[in-house]
Amino acid sequence: MSAFRPIEWRDAERAVVLIDQRRLPENEVYVIAATWEQVADAIREMVVRGAPAIGISAAYGLAIAALDRAAGAHDVPDLERALEAAFSGLAATRPTAVNLFWALERMRRRLRACEGPPAEAAACLLEEAHAIAAEDVAMCEAMGDLGAALLPEGTRLLTHCNAGGLATGGYGTALGVARSAWKTGRLRHVLADETRPFLQGARLTAWELHREGIPVRVITDNMAGHFMQRGEVDAVVVGADRVAANGDVANKIGTYAVAVLAHAHGLPFYVAAPTSTVDLATPTGAEIPIERRHDREVTHLGDRRLVPAGVAVENPAFDVTPARLVTAIITERGVARPPYADSLAALLRQG
Amino acid sequence: MSAFRPIEWRDAERAVVLIDQRRLPENEVYVIAATWEQVADAIREMVVRGAPAIGISAAYGLAIAALDRAAGAHDVPDLERALEAAFSGLAATRPTAVNLFWALERMRRRLRACEGPPAEAAACLLEEAHAIAAEDVAMCEAMGDLGAALLPEGTRLLTHCNAGGLATGGYGTALGVARSAWKTGRLRHVLADETRPFLQGARLTAWELHREGIPVRVITDNMAGHFMQRGEVDAVVVGADRVAANGDVANKIGTYAVAVLAHAHGLPFYVAAPTSTVDLATPTGAEIPIERRHDREVTHLGDRRLVPAGVAVENPAFDVTPARLVTAIITERGVARPPYADSLAALLRQG
Repeated sequence: MSAFRPIEWRDAERAVVLIDQRRLPENEVYVIAATWEQVADAIREMVVRGAPAIGISAAYGLAIAALDRAAGAHDVPDLERALEAAFSGLAATRPTAVNLFWALERMRRRLRACEGPPAEAAACLLEEAHAIAAEDVAMCEAMGDLGAALLPEGTRLLTHCNAGGLATGGYGTALGVARSAWKTGRLRHVLADETRPFLQGARLTAWELHREGIPVRVITDNMAGHFMQRGEVDAVVVGADRVAANGDVANKIGTYAVAVLAHAHGLPFYVAAPTSTVDLATPTGAEIPIERRHDREVTHLGDRRLVPAGVAVENPAFDVTPARLVTAIITERGVARPPYADSLAALLRQG
Repeated sequence: MSAFRPIEWRDAERAVVLIDQRRLPENEVYVIAATWEQVADAIREMVVRGAPAIGISAAYGLAIAALDRAAGAHDVPDLERALEAAFSGLAATRPTAVNLFWALERMRRRLRACEGPPAEAAACLLEEAHAIAAEDVAMCEAMGDLGAALLPEGTRLLTHCNAGGLATGGYGTALGVARSAWKTGRLRHVLADETRPFLQGARLTAWELHREGIPVRVITDNMAGHFMQRGEVDAVVVGADRVAANGDVANKIGTYAVAVLAHAHGLPFYVAAPTSTVDLATPTGAEIPIERRHDREVTHLGDRRLVPAGVAVENPAFDVTPARLVTAIITERGVARPPYADSLAALLRQG
């Protein structure tokens, strides 16, 4: 487990407490979301981000909605109807990461399995959200250990974005691999791409690794190729927002370029993602919707304008790395190797 | 010629006036450099940047020093001795771009060729600086036309950093190609990498193209691969800070990654640089010194801290693109093709 709690449930307040990731590293402040709408806002506005963390937060948001509506519902089907706005409102926050839909679907299945009165069903949903959060930490630890075993001693690991404790229940996917590798003496240091425009690498990956004493250096995104060319990177590990059935990987914008660069330099390119991120219903990366976020993330930093007024910008939040550039996909159930259509399906059948 | 004057000589003030490129696009303010030390500061602190613009500015700095010292010198050799501090002080400002050394060397040759009294020699040096500035515009226009002829109609051009009017006497190397292509109807639009950490693309390339009505869209550096993958880029053109005898190209950090990506997508990767940027005395890119700039350019933006305190960063200002990734080098004397050892040497012999 990491030294901070990115997502914490507070019984007394019947609310989920989220570290505000927009304000790190300068300010460590927390947002209390006590309604499902507040949780949805927190996801949309990136108070909380990272595919697994979004899933966990959405599950809590749904549980809060159920606790709010239970008293007014006659039975479980009636409660489910009352929760439709929460289900669809939470699902509409971010389109790319599949964990969001996976978590909401899991909550719906749990709800339908309840036979007691609505209040009991709402308690079950809170329990399910706790289970999703707890399982996430266990899955990340398993992935971390499986991934670390792939790295030789003294590895200089490059990562993009923040697939860390902040993006999950607390241990991280890609940074879970870094944490486990550090514990077992295999990691020399992490090179963190700053990851424009939201700067998840500079702000978040650097913050959480530095806080735990894991050596990290920040580079601008455009330096990754240069350090590979100089022989200063041994492997790349990133997270994922959705993995298609054929092994294509949607992840933070810039991941694709890092994968092309790793391939050009003969470096292994690993993706660490729980099986909940694998979406067998999406055949290839071409079918993954890519969120386009606000211009302002690119044109401004805080109040400072970087791009002249009147100039157009682009802001796709994700890109798709084709399976052929992915050396292995590290899941909590094992390491998938190409051809991914077979290896991913086999891992998912184990569930 | 472009719609602004990045470097302007003012006789009345015996000073060179530079647009402060650190403050664009928000503020259009000018710095008046009336001593060689002020010119050196302006180069070091990136009031003026871009290989050709640095060369022109340094030439004016040396001319100012000569005008200042002429009265106290007995003869031309005595004046040259008095100028050694200016020669070495200006040369010490930035290590990578070769135009700086080329311009200073040209000024020294002109000085030694003077037979008149020191005051006349100083006037000759000012004349030489004017000639360097005027020739730069003519060279950029020639490069622009040669480069534009390489592009098919409707080209969507990607560029990195600012090799524009602001980086030269006013027309630009890479953006000279864009300007000429726009005039002849071959350019659909320019995609400008924002170019962290100094944001020359977002701030400067966008500013100067937008001002002239040339369509430009800004992307973060890590999006270039994504737009190539989507088939939305037809060609890449960049400038250079130094071209080695074998065709290896030192240019702004991130250029190498763009070249690898262009190669992976079968796109032409052009370098536009005057022959003064070609350094036959540097055999390969491995011998080009790469400037490492302040951490603060990466850790902060203005007063805002992006990277947590205590976390290390890297800040190499340039990288080297190997000749094998370069489709052609566009100079004012013609377009060099591989093998560059032959084609570049042939172009330089024409001089």
